[in-house]
Amino acid sequence: MNEFDLIQSYFASAGAHRSDVPVGVGDDCALLQIPAGAKLAVSIDTMVSGVHFLPDCDPEALGHKCLAVGLSDLAAMGAEPAWATLALTLPRVDSAWLRAFSAGFSTLALEHGVALVGGDTTRGPLSISVQVHGLVSTGYGLRRSGARPGDLVFVSGTLGDAGLALQRMQAGDRVADWLRTRLERPTPRVALGAALYGLATAMIDVSDGLAADLGHILRASAVAADVHLRDLPLSSEVAAYVSATGDWSLPLAFGDDYELCFTLSPQRIADLRALASHFDCPLRVVGRLRYGSGLRCVMPDGAPWHSEQAGFDHFAGDE
Amino acid sequence: MNEFDLIQSYFASAGAHRSDVPVGVGDDCALLQIPAGAKLAVSIDTMVSGVHFLPDCDPEALGHKCLAVGLSDLAAMGAEPAWATLALTLPRVDSAWLRAFSAGFSTLALEHGVALVGGDTTRGPLSISVQVHGLVSTGYGLRRSGARPGDLVFVSGTLGDAGLALQRMQAGDRVADWLRTRLERPTPRVALGAALYGLATAMIDVSDGLAADLGHILRASAVAADVHLRDLPLSSEVAAYVSATGDWSLPLAFGDDYELCFTLSPQRIADLRALASHFDCPLRVVGRLRYGSGLRCVMPDGAPWHSEQAGFDHFAGDE
Repeated sequence: MNEFDLIQSYFASAGAHRSDVPVGVGDDCALLQIPAGAKLAVSIDTMVSGVHFLPDCDPEALGHKCLAVGLSDLAAMGAEPAWATLALTLPRVDSAWLRAFSAGFSTLALEHGVALVGGDTTRGPLSISVQVHGLVSTGYGLRRSGARPGDLVFVSGTLGDAGLALQRMQAGDRVADWLRTRLERPTPRVALGAALYGLATAMIDVSDGLAADLGHILRASAVAADVHLRDLPLSSEVAAYVSATGDWSLPLAFGDDYELCFTLSPQRIADLRALASHFDCPLRVVGRLRYGSGLRCVMPDGAPWHSEQAGFDHFAGDE
Repeated sequence: MNEFDLIQSYFASAGAHRSDVPVGVGDDCALLQIPAGAKLAVSIDTMVSGVHFLPDCDPEALGHKCLAVGLSDLAAMGAEPAWATLALTLPRVDSAWLRAFSAGFSTLALEHGVALVGGDTTRGPLSISVQVHGLVSTGYGLRRSGARPGDLVFVSGTLGDAGLALQRMQAGDRVADWLRTRLERPTPRVALGAALYGLATAMIDVSDGLAADLGHILRASAVAADVHLRDLPLSSEVAAYVSATGDWSLPLAFGDDYELCFTLSPQRIADLRALASHFDCPLRVVGRLRYGSGLRCVMPDGAPWHSEQAGFDHFAGDE
């Protein structure tokens, strides 16, 4: 079985359902038909065994997650997902692993109308790069740079669940199914992201932790933010953990949440309310922007929260 | 220095020179403006340390090669290169290595008008995934499936140089600079590929060896080919090696040549000659297509050439 056969046999179902792929897997390049007037949004992410996931993790969940991470980037741009490419580096050919991985990948791809159009399979230490391609039919996408002083800061869903799940798994503790799902099978907020396009002033997905990712919006928009930690949306398990330990780093700096953080003019609150009624995902105000720079996080007791390492940084500590 | 700063600081010069990138590196997605009527050609390739290159290889050459490999895929489709994304997995941050790598990457990118529009940097065993994006302004690209019985099979440049260079380096022998360049800094035949669009009937780039890659054209086009090995374009060094050893696997099955293999109706020979005068790259007829299936390689003594392993297969031997 050669590289080509590998990709073909396991991923065939993930590539055949769009009519805008004149040439798919199996030629030197895939050929994609972009609708007139639309712009193409692209994002590439790599997940490495032992860094982003445990070597023995469920391959079906891994297939889901490595696509979900990219879809979350498209969501944060307000783009409509369309195509993906997959570069798989594997220590060896393992049919059962590949079948489960491709099932996880393909199921999520179909759910979002994404066609797998190309890839590469090589031998080496387990890692996966996925590039997602989406469409922005008008304008220039929902960027990080449009936030203004006075805007409210919103977060979708809840923060810190993935971090708590990993902490419990590593300690060998029992992890509730829903909590494990939050770590292993995150739900990219694609429809919400698209709906917020034209309404929010800036948006990012929370992959490195709220402090780091909101920080990107603040720098790109040249504004400051005050966030009251009592307003953070927390599941009851994370709320109990924070209350017991006083450790806010889980919801603020662990990341892997794949929720959306966006900013909104207070004048658009009614529009957001009307929109929110169509989604079962809670949206919570966590802070407000002002002139200045930097993020000020205030703990419930009024003291400031600081973190030496705000957000997951793969190279923290190096030079 | 975080991931974002890393990519920004070393690759800034590779991303700023196209006007069709409304959003480049530094947001959730890059945004690309596709010209009206054009189709997008995409290809992703991964290079892994110890598999595709030696761990101590020159980082500048590596930066060149990991983009060249993708540009060669665009060339084989007859597409015009436009943009690239880069997913870098590094064991640690090494400024000197990154500076040299990005210099090699950026120089080749600028040479072909390619803008680096996005990327990801993670910690892990050294590997590099590059996705290239090109434009096909009319039609559906130069595919593998258009070859017809009676067509002539052409190859650009010379075959087997990269294999001979690697063999000599691994034996500790002296390697001439031009031969080493053929391995470490291959020249993607981008302009030639674009010029052959509308003239050749099928095309592929020779990355896995002529036998394997021509085999892809034969299967996709449902034709057979006879190739006379005395007609293969060989440098004098590879010709001397083959003559001394009788080993044809270097020019036929090692790969890493990044030359173009294409098929042409004999009626278009005059058109090809006119075109070839604009390129300094030799084009050689190596065989002819006929009805049937499979590739028949005839050695100069008239005996058939067989290879157990026709072309580089990362997973050969597995299940």
